[in-house]
Amino acid sequence: MSGSGTADAPEPIAADEPAVVLLSGGLDSAVVLAWMRRRGHPVVAISFDYGQRHRFELSCAARLAEIHGVREHRIVPIDLRAFGGSALTDDVEVPKDRELDDASAIPVTYVPARNTVFLSLALALAEARGARHLAIGVNAVDYSGYPDCRPEFIAAFERLANLATRDGVVDAAQGRRHFQLHAPLASLSKAGIVRLGLELGVDFASTTSCYDPTPTGAPCRRCDACRLRAKGFDEAGVEDPALRRD
Amino acid sequence: MSGSGTADAPEPIAADEPAVVLLSGGLDSAVVLAWMRRRGHPVVAISFDYGQRHRFELSCAARLAEIHGVREHRIVPIDLRAFGGSALTDDVEVPKDRELDDASAIPVTYVPARNTVFLSLALALAEARGARHLAIGVNAVDYSGYPDCRPEFIAAFERLANLATRDGVVDAAQGRRHFQLHAPLASLSKAGIVRLGLELGVDFASTTSCYDPTPTGAPCRRCDACRLRAKGFDEAGVEDPALRRD
Repeated sequence: MSGSGTADAPEPIAADEPAVVLLSGGLDSAVVLAWMRRRGHPVVAISFDYGQRHRFELSCAARLAEIHGVREHRIVPIDLRAFGGSALTDDVEVPKDRELDDASAIPVTYVPARNTVFLSLALALAEARGARHLAIGVNAVDYSGYPDCRPEFIAAFERLANLATRDGVVDAAQGRRHFQLHAPLASLSKAGIVRLGLELGVDFASTTSCYDPTPTGAPCRRCDACRLRAKGFDEAGVEDPALRRD
Repeated sequence: MSGSGTADAPEPIAADEPAVVLLSGGLDSAVVLAWMRRRGHPVVAISFDYGQRHRFELSCAARLAEIHGVREHRIVPIDLRAFGGSALTDDVEVPKDRELDDASAIPVTYVPARNTVFLSLALALAEARGARHLAIGVNAVDYSGYPDCRPEFIAAFERLANLATRDGVVDAAQGRRHFQLHAPLASLSKAGIVRLGLELGVDFASTTSCYDPTPTGAPCRRCDACRLRAKGFDEAGVEDPALRRD
């Protein structure tokens, strides 16, 4: 795992090795995409059409992929709705006006094993494309308490990736780590992410965070994701252009 | 991880906790399904329609699910063909008559990150269904050298599963391991798997192993999977009923 644990600006060194970036269309993954592009990586972006009620994010992902000149953008259909178990995919109310510091329980918006499924598919794509780098916008400071956003999860996945794959095994035999999982936002506050995004020129108007937006992407302003985002923009002292959508 | 490292007969104790079993329709997963049912687990079976050229295996999986009285059988479409990189999904010749002890290279039938993707989806289903047990028919004795069949991969996935999920985190806080990944065939020879299957009453005629069968499931008899299977039946001294298909 690299990049996490620091709030450093991205290294200005160009890295010409291709990277797979998980791109949801949200604020965090947009900043990660810009960060990887600034480092110089050619990027293959991967998004998931998983039956999420906030499908508007996929149009944001497509727009961001275009803005940042990705080499390929793949939207993978994977119907997690068929399994059930989450307010993000089922016919269950998205909680509103929840206390953000209520860490007593993982909320009903948790989707079982979501980041494990997404990273596994990103890993399959990375190996098929010869990419050693994977990047994901998880954050464990201003977040909803999902277990698969924590640094220990990211470290365990990187370890698994290098045991699970041909490329991982071949490089391990030479004493090298093949797959590197980048989580550059892991220890940033939401305001820190907004500031990093501004520095990297991210078009926040092309991002969405709301779990329960209108079909045209107007945010509800009351779900966890909206409130964490608002807190970030407030603390960074800038206006959120996504609030202008209606 | 449990069950691996021993060639013991399954415990006769009924376990009433539900389990998710990865069911390809092959010989190994059929034995694992029978083993979990003999232990007493109510089973949710999961199969994958991933663009494999040997799609005949899905009809075997459905038949096995019926024979063994699973509670639910879910066939998940996930198009790994879109990523490419394998003779099992691409328009690349399946190797025939390869030396089985040629461990110098992982063969072209390797599918990038396949078992990681499959186990991730099985984990999502398990958490959504309240199942603590996952079972997979990997084997690292008479096998094709795939990295994601090795015991160290299985152990790393079990560890990840307990970090990645709500149920894993809740139980870890109580000092308990939630998800258990069973790989009962891990250290058996192919002949040992055949013998265990006979003991458990597995209907081998309802299984398939060939990577390149005819549409009606007649095996090619020359790919790695056919030859490993033939070696197993030979050494166990029994006839393979699947050879009667044409």
